[in-house]
Amino acid sequence: MSIFFNPDLASLEAYTPGEQPQGMKYIKLNTNESPYPPSPEVAAALSNEEVQNLRLYPDPDCRQLKEALASMKATDIRNIFISNGSDDILNFAFLAFAGGGGRKVFFPDITYGFYQVFADLHGISAEIIPLQEDFSINIEDYCSLPFSGGLICIANPNAPTGIPLTTEDIEKILLANPDKVVLIDEAYVDFGAESALPLIRNYDNLLVVQTFSKSRSMAGARLGFAAASSPLIDDLERIRFSTNPYNINRLTMAAGIAAIKSGEYFMDNCAEIQKTRSMCVSALESMGFEVVPSKANFIFVCSKLIDGEFLYNELKRRGILIRHFNKERIRNYNRITIGTPEEMDILLNEIRKISEEVSL
Amino acid sequence: MSIFFNPDLASLEAYTPGEQPQGMKYIKLNTNESPYPPSPEVAAALSNEEVQNLRLYPDPDCRQLKEALASMKATDIRNIFISNGSDDILNFAFLAFAGGGGRKVFFPDITYGFYQVFADLHGISAEIIPLQEDFSINIEDYCSLPFSGGLICIANPNAPTGIPLTTEDIEKILLANPDKVVLIDEAYVDFGAESALPLIRNYDNLLVVQTFSKSRSMAGARLGFAAASSPLIDDLERIRFSTNPYNINRLTMAAGIAAIKSGEYFMDNCAEIQKTRSMCVSALESMGFEVVPSKANFIFVCSKLIDGEFLYNELKRRGILIRHFNKERIRNYNRITIGTPEEMDILLNEIRKISEEVSL
Repeated sequence: MSIFFNPDLASLEAYTPGEQPQGMKYIKLNTNESPYPPSPEVAAALSNEEVQNLRLYPDPDCRQLKEALASMKATDIRNIFISNGSDDILNFAFLAFAGGGGRKVFFPDITYGFYQVFADLHGISAEIIPLQEDFSINIEDYCSLPFSGGLICIANPNAPTGIPLTTEDIEKILLANPDKVVLIDEAYVDFGAESALPLIRNYDNLLVVQTFSKSRSMAGARLGFAAASSPLIDDLERIRFSTNPYNINRLTMAAGIAAIKSGEYFMDNCAEIQKTRSMCVSALESMGFEVVPSKANFIFVCSKLIDGEFLYNELKRRGILIRHFNKERIRNYNRITIGTPEEMDILLNEIRKISEEVSL
Repeated sequence: MSIFFNPDLASLEAYTPGEQPQGMKYIKLNTNESPYPPSPEVAAALSNEEVQNLRLYPDPDCRQLKEALASMKATDIRNIFISNGSDDILNFAFLAFAGGGGRKVFFPDITYGFYQVFADLHGISAEIIPLQEDFSINIEDYCSLPFSGGLICIANPNAPTGIPLTTEDIEKILLANPDKVVLIDEAYVDFGAESALPLIRNYDNLLVVQTFSKSRSMAGARLGFAAASSPLIDDLERIRFSTNPYNINRLTMAAGIAAIKSGEYFMDNCAEIQKTRSMCVSALESMGFEVVPSKANFIFVCSKLIDGEFLYNELKRRGILIRHFNKERIRNYNRITIGTPEEMDILLNEIRKISEEVSL
């Protein structure tokens, strides 16, 4: 920290992203990327004409991409917000809907680690609500919060557990908290959970956040979007136009429009990943692993026989990256991204070997 | 504004970017874009392999691009920061180096309009220092500021005037303000002004910000960078990793590396734009315009005979966009981006016609 740094942020702890080794030597099952490339339409959209036009600023209103998204989600462009990855939207939402006035943000103890960082960055007090013993959310916990505004932040399915909520449960939370914005972070919703997006028509306090990173194979393009009532969207736009109005580059904008047109490719990939997930869950359970029931493109697993950190290190040594968190409550677990069937076979084989070595 | 919006930001006025009409019908001389496309190396770098790899997150440490920039600027990667356009860096710098502790930010009355927005966004008190009668900065004004930390923000060349500072003047400001970070915003430095970047070796309070948007024809790709002592860079990285660690997408990263390799193409374009600027200045002066001496890729002009807003509207009606600001002190001026010689000929012809019509 330099002597010039903001004293209010002296204790800010930045987010630690998953390892991104730049040599591609690993089977990479640690940051929930898709094992499949973007659709052929995306490649075609990144034409030479688009490259020539890079000399010009992108459309700060993202009109064409908003129209494509609104059409796909059967809503209006006034209900759509677009940003440079969904983290960007979470950041804006914390500032807009929990910042100021001593308001709070509410989220589970085990969830996406960035929520705490955004709270710290904006000086927002975070009320952490523990998950139940089985890592599920107790809806009642979110239906008796103090009536003092702020933001509820729930990942659905949750990360790193993969456990989904039903739309009925989300409606209960929305109804019990008309004073708060309820942010449903649906980064992983396309792998078998139910989206709350259609509810934006009925609840002006609902903010649904999605991303092109996982199910649309575009983590490297950085594209997230949100849907909500138009006053919430206007608030987010006000923050975006006060930080970086040109935050979506031209190529990502073109790639996003093309990806939306590739509906079948997208659905096939999601179905394939769910099939591979089922296969993996069965295999790991047959090896004595406990697998948290997941509707995401990852599974959260532990074994009474193999220490979580040991497994992570052993697999890394063998060329496979998975994600281990040091947090006390989940120290024995690992989060494993669902890759191709071939990648998962290699993983399962190595886990089998490690299990055998451990039990010798 | 929704009932959920941050009460501390109730009066925040977002930045208004220049018009970006999405039909390309206009000769666009309003947002300081390059009239030339990105280099052929940039087009080649956006290969099919890069598109396939979009499924993977980008390198959050931007290592390859940092190495290319460090090599180009003869410095170390620890002295380089990269972000999603230079506005992003300004935003982070305001938060990091003027936020907290009741510190202030200091900048001229006539300069880049976003500085005031960043100050408002972060609740930072802005001390506005008027330019002299001829729009130049009085260096002495910046050498007797209170010794209470904060940030000095100077665009060099300044926008919308185009007037540069010498490196000697910048050193005077750096020496007089060891308690403050001095941010030199060099968005337009490649068109004839002198960069302060080499001074980062000697001044740990200097932050130099540049962009690929103008001189490297990549406004649509969103790529800005900063150079400074490593403690300042670490502070900026801490903010970046607390907001959006993956904020540079893969394609922009690849395009940036390629653009750095296209040194000759870049220098030829900058020289061409300076030549066109000279031609325009002479032509406008011969028509009775006052042209502020510019070292940028734009000129700031006014005429005693034609009202500034009238000229802006007349040119727009004739298919040419320039930039007019409503601020009292510069209401009679217009900022005109330097385009191709052909575009400028059309502009000059239309201005000639308007002048004749006005004097009838």
